[in-house]
Amino acid sequence: MRMAELSERSGVAVPTIKFYLREQLLASGERTSPNQAAYDESHVDRLRLVRALLDVGGLSVTAVRAVLAAIDNTELPLDWAFGIAQQALPAVLPDEDDAASARAIDDLIAERGWRIDPNNPGRATAARVLSRYESLGLGHLRQTAGEYLRAAEIVAAADLDSVIASPDRSTQVETVVVGTVLGDSLFAGLRRIAQEQRSHTLFDPTGSECEEAQ
Amino acid sequence: MRMAELSERSGVAVPTIKFYLREQLLASGERTSPNQAAYDESHVDRLRLVRALLDVGGLSVTAVRAVLAAIDNTELPLDWAFGIAQQALPAVLPDEDDAASARAIDDLIAERGWRIDPNNPGRATAARVLSRYESLGLGHLRQTAGEYLRAAEIVAAADLDSVIASPDRSTQVETVVVGTVLGDSLFAGLRRIAQEQRSHTLFDPTGSECEEAQ
Repeated sequence: MRMAELSERSGVAVPTIKFYLREQLLASGERTSPNQAAYDESHVDRLRLVRALLDVGGLSVTAVRAVLAAIDNTELPLDWAFGIAQQALPAVLPDEDDAASARAIDDLIAERGWRIDPNNPGRATAARVLSRYESLGLGHLRQTAGEYLRAAEIVAAADLDSVIASPDRSTQVETVVVGTVLGDSLFAGLRRIAQEQRSHTLFDPTGSECEEAQ
Repeated sequence: MRMAELSERSGVAVPTIKFYLREQLLASGERTSPNQAAYDESHVDRLRLVRALLDVGGLSVTAVRAVLAAIDNTELPLDWAFGIAQQALPAVLPDEDDAASARAIDDLIAERGWRIDPNNPGRATAARVLSRYESLGLGHLRQTAGEYLRAAEIVAAADLDSVIASPDRSTQVETVVVGTVLGDSLFAGLRRIAQEQRSHTLFDPTGSECEEAQ
């Protein structure tokens, strides 16, 4: 198909497609004349993926490029694909100021008998948040980390189950990266819902009963 | 204190402080001469909070302004503070295309016997992610939502516990907004850690034993 049709099929405007081609987020089409190229279904699929990573996942163009490289590298072991998906996501750099908080995270990890690479990007991110809680005078918020980790274990188990349920290798790798990136948004959305429910239960315990009685 | 000392105490550069003053993220100091103003501890605290919401929370300047208004409004009921913190966060707008996914979310909510405002911003966010999974040909990822919601319930319970553990009303409101914003980052970090652990267990079950044997 020509670029106009690719645009129509994918819902992505032609100038945006040209930008993605220049930024190597989309492979060139097959050249059919000096000024024209032909695109196929793989380009439609790739455009959908790029949009999802940029818009819903909130990744930068550079991060999307790294994630696509992981998807396209058929040699990559699956647990590396997890690492690349993780590294591609916006993360904080480890900081000496967060060393005490990083030890608190390590203690929680050790309590569960886990062995985690100290360079896992989640470790620095979690430590930074605990430090901020402390410096904001909200040290009691640090107490949430234990329950958060218990919840994270449930989410990670579901994540890996979805990888195993994937029919083939290329779908598995795509499941790793898409599920890691968009899964943060999914969880954040569901957390808002659960917060509202918990808030009703604690602050307005009779609310739903009153409504039912009407 | 003068602005130079405020900058030193908070670690925020003077031009950045001036930007925050213009953007009304920071209250003006008390004017001591036509060209000078005096700042106090409340300005140091507020600068730390603004930095945390912008850098770690990833909020826009507009969103930070809304969050600060919630903190400063002493009349606001606590469950409203939750609503404002939620509304201030980057969210997607409900979309007709996501109607089927929104119903899937509603089914999960109904299964748990919960009553949620249809305008809860998390509902649109979660529905959008499920739609993207589907359009990317990764519909099996939708199956994670049930376990994610179970995990979100644990996280929300910890969130509300930390609000209740706050010593006074102003700390409670600050706990709501900071915990909601930074808690997403904390959870995302811990999820990366749990993914690595789960990945080891499934793909490399003997890894840690080998290391121990050395």
